[in-house]
Amino acid sequence: MRAYDRLKPYMEKAMAIKTALTLFEWDNETLAPQEAGELTASVIGLLSGEYLEAAAGEEVEQLLARCEAEDAALSSEAERAIVREMKEELERVRDIPKEEYQEFARLTARSASIWAKAREEQNFAVFAPALASIIRYQKKFAGYRAQKGEALYDVMLEDYEKGFTMESLDRFFGLIKTHLVPFLQKIKTEGRRIDDSFLTGDYPEYKQEKLARFLAEYVGFDFKRGVLAVSAHPFTTNLHNKDVRITTHYTKRVDSSLFSVIHEAGHGIYEMGIRNDLTLTPVGQGASMGMHESQSRFFENMIGRSEFFWMPIYEKLRGLFPDELGEIPLEAFTDAVNKVQPGLIRTEADELTYSLHVLIRYEIEKLLIEEDMDVREIPRVWADKYEEYLGVRPSHSGEGELQDIHWSQGSFGYFPSYALGSAFAAQIYYHMRENMDFDGLLARGELGVIREYLRENIHQYGRLKTSRQILKDTTGEDFNPLYYIRYLKEKYGKIYRVKN
Amino acid sequence: MRAYDRLKPYMEKAMAIKTALTLFEWDNETLAPQEAGELTASVIGLLSGEYLEAAAGEEVEQLLARCEAEDAALSSEAERAIVREMKEELERVRDIPKEEYQEFARLTARSASIWAKAREEQNFAVFAPALASIIRYQKKFAGYRAQKGEALYDVMLEDYEKGFTMESLDRFFGLIKTHLVPFLQKIKTEGRRIDDSFLTGDYPEYKQEKLARFLAEYVGFDFKRGVLAVSAHPFTTNLHNKDVRITTHYTKRVDSSLFSVIHEAGHGIYEMGIRNDLTLTPVGQGASMGMHESQSRFFENMIGRSEFFWMPIYEKLRGLFPDELGEIPLEAFTDAVNKVQPGLIRTEADELTYSLHVLIRYEIEKLLIEEDMDVREIPRVWADKYEEYLGVRPSHSGEGELQDIHWSQGSFGYFPSYALGSAFAAQIYYHMRENMDFDGLLARGELGVIREYLRENIHQYGRLKTSRQILKDTTGEDFNPLYYIRYLKEKYGKIYRVKN
Repeated sequence: MRAYDRLKPYMEKAMAIKTALTLFEWDNETLAPQEAGELTASVIGLLSGEYLEAAAGEEVEQLLARCEAEDAALSSEAERAIVREMKEELERVRDIPKEEYQEFARLTARSASIWAKAREEQNFAVFAPALASIIRYQKKFAGYRAQKGEALYDVMLEDYEKGFTMESLDRFFGLIKTHLVPFLQKIKTEGRRIDDSFLTGDYPEYKQEKLARFLAEYVGFDFKRGVLAVSAHPFTTNLHNKDVRITTHYTKRVDSSLFSVIHEAGHGIYEMGIRNDLTLTPVGQGASMGMHESQSRFFENMIGRSEFFWMPIYEKLRGLFPDELGEIPLEAFTDAVNKVQPGLIRTEADELTYSLHVLIRYEIEKLLIEEDMDVREIPRVWADKYEEYLGVRPSHSGEGELQDIHWSQGSFGYFPSYALGSAFAAQIYYHMRENMDFDGLLARGELGVIREYLRENIHQYGRLKTSRQILKDTTGEDFNPLYYIRYLKEKYGKIYRVKN
Repeated sequence: MRAYDRLKPYMEKAMAIKTALTLFEWDNETLAPQEAGELTASVIGLLSGEYLEAAAGEEVEQLLARCEAEDAALSSEAERAIVREMKEELERVRDIPKEEYQEFARLTARSASIWAKAREEQNFAVFAPALASIIRYQKKFAGYRAQKGEALYDVMLEDYEKGFTMESLDRFFGLIKTHLVPFLQKIKTEGRRIDDSFLTGDYPEYKQEKLARFLAEYVGFDFKRGVLAVSAHPFTTNLHNKDVRITTHYTKRVDSSLFSVIHEAGHGIYEMGIRNDLTLTPVGQGASMGMHESQSRFFENMIGRSEFFWMPIYEKLRGLFPDELGEIPLEAFTDAVNKVQPGLIRTEADELTYSLHVLIRYEIEKLLIEEDMDVREIPRVWADKYEEYLGVRPSHSGEGELQDIHWSQGSFGYFPSYALGSAFAAQIYYHMRENMDFDGLLARGELGVIREYLRENIHQYGRLKTSRQILKDTTGEDFNPLYYIRYLKEKYGKIYRVKN
């Protein structure tokens, strides 16, 4: 019997438990009753312990070593990738004592509702102790792995985007600051004024929901294999490639849920496109968080915020909201949904200011992890940085450091992938435009061609390739952030009628 | 270290996996997308295998034997009950080969959607092959346990209601037939006519939902610890005593969801009332299926269908549906929701014909398990029995043998507990009436007193006591089905103004 065949049951067990944990997380964010937290967290803690044993038990370690030694016995690229991913996961968790691993799982399971409560009460102090514990664990866990003396934050970044460290991200964000901060200034002083007041109003929730379902389906989210629900913070998750779940939330701003849904549908379409032989294996998920965000941001921005996209469907939208949009021509609508407006909320930011929101989080994470900044400093530092980069200052924690769920889940090092993903998307976008009549396809509602291109080049592979490999194979060159700068300058230069 | 303390981690692991399986089942019935079934079933199969190992592994068996030998070392009634329940579960599953156990779990996970499809298409042939496999497995599993030569169906019955066998159930149903079939005839010929036409109409779904939430809360379902959702077949489940979930469905008949919700809330209140030290242990669930049904039927019928119950809230109901109920006086409404109408659908049956629906299922299950009747015979036998006992004949499988989900889940032996539960409820009801001003409490909306009585005498114990013990301790006598006969004759004699 091949070592791989003996390894497989462990892999399947680990994936089954991971799938159950994913379902608990989904349920927790979308449905579970208020007081369930503590007891459900104990269940999650126990299951996490089981996961740890299945993913990093002694026998798994031995079998993985044998698989690597018997490389020739691996019969496919998929098997090789599964062994590689399992090895990486083993290295991520092997040195974490089971007790600590379970305690951390319980802690993050409980933290979601603590964060939600703090956010509702606009009181950071409610969340601070849990956050301090989470950071303590995250540093400890990164410490177990940083055996070659890597910086702790670099270890964390590696989980979300392989091959990107503080050094490369500093360069990337430096480029963004150099180019976009003055360009943003120019738009504010020289650009024309855009009216977006009509996007806010009495848009009935049931109609927004109808629109959300229509748009998700229109961009290619398959409801036979997917679900749309409501949560405080929109997100996407999946049990496998035939059960993909997205959420949104409905507010007074119609564009908020509208682009949220297209964004999450982009994530969802990625997961639905992963090959059947990879799903429910460690290779059966997006190549990286950055590549995942590249797809959601591609759908949201390159597709969803294009005037060509709306041409075939704007009448339908107007028909749904005749009072609000009846008098608004298409161009005014697409201008409004692209209005540049330095604001406080990341998920509602325009594309130009978006990466500055991410930059702020990146800088604060560095302070927390590398400089041991006290969590109690976060509100002040957050507000100061928003003032510095965006010229706005939150009036309370709810629109400041409590707006994102990520830290409550222990996701440190995740945020940079939002900006990287946007940059990946721009690089892919320019390449696609060379190969197809992108605007024409949108204008004719032929999104299937675009989706098929993405599936063929990106989605199907899961983690068979890294994001850098995918970029190389798809666009013919390495990651090049200048496409992102160019994209933003061209797009907003045109909309605001300023030279860049 | 006590054997019990070494056993405990196995118990906790088994409960954690069982809780995950419960969540998958909930999700499957309420939300999961159509095409998820096959892959999710594979995950469920794997988790079931883990459950089997945690509940019936070799070490668990040894530890349980040691716990029984060291009975004095068990420090509480709860510990003793946990050992007893674990032992029983061990005996239930020990001899089932892991492969078969997992295959059966996958089969039932898939069967839910096969059943739903068959039901929608009103085509029993779609479901028949899956049902035949399920029955094959169930007989095989019962066979592993029937080592003292018990009848297979008796083994199955034992899972739902300890101490009830075909012999006692034949007696019980015999009593029902003897008393109720002629009484039903008398009502049809001598009773007055009751109009219930106004219950069917254009009752908007969003208002029905509002009413459902109001009623659930009014009878005591705590939404901080519970959830209400929609599913094809209303049901209740729970992860623990702080996460209890009920469902309903909305139709053209307003009383359908209305009493469904009160019924499921009754189940839910039972689960919410179980002691904190018992939840998430094998003792932390209702004493038996019969006792569970006694509580749901008690809430639905003794509470919910009483005119006193509606006195404080009927105006609210009328206010919600002024067009439909504005002209209907309270008494006409409560008469209508108690109208006797031999029909095809069990869950919509009045109390008097209800147990005849159950009897039919009981008789068919006996034929399938004990007489090896071919599943393809079911539609004909079903229709013949409905004609014989209720004078109606289904025109298609959807209103016949495909109406209930239970068989698709492998639940053979479950149905009798519906009738037993109704009989338990009647016995408890008469005892309560001797101890409190039951009608007065309902009329004053003081349901808390009734609920507290049930919690104190029944709910809190979980499985610490059997249903027979609970009946004895609560009512001072053994199970006595004559209360049930008396209850139905008194109630319907009064409503229909016939002597019994």
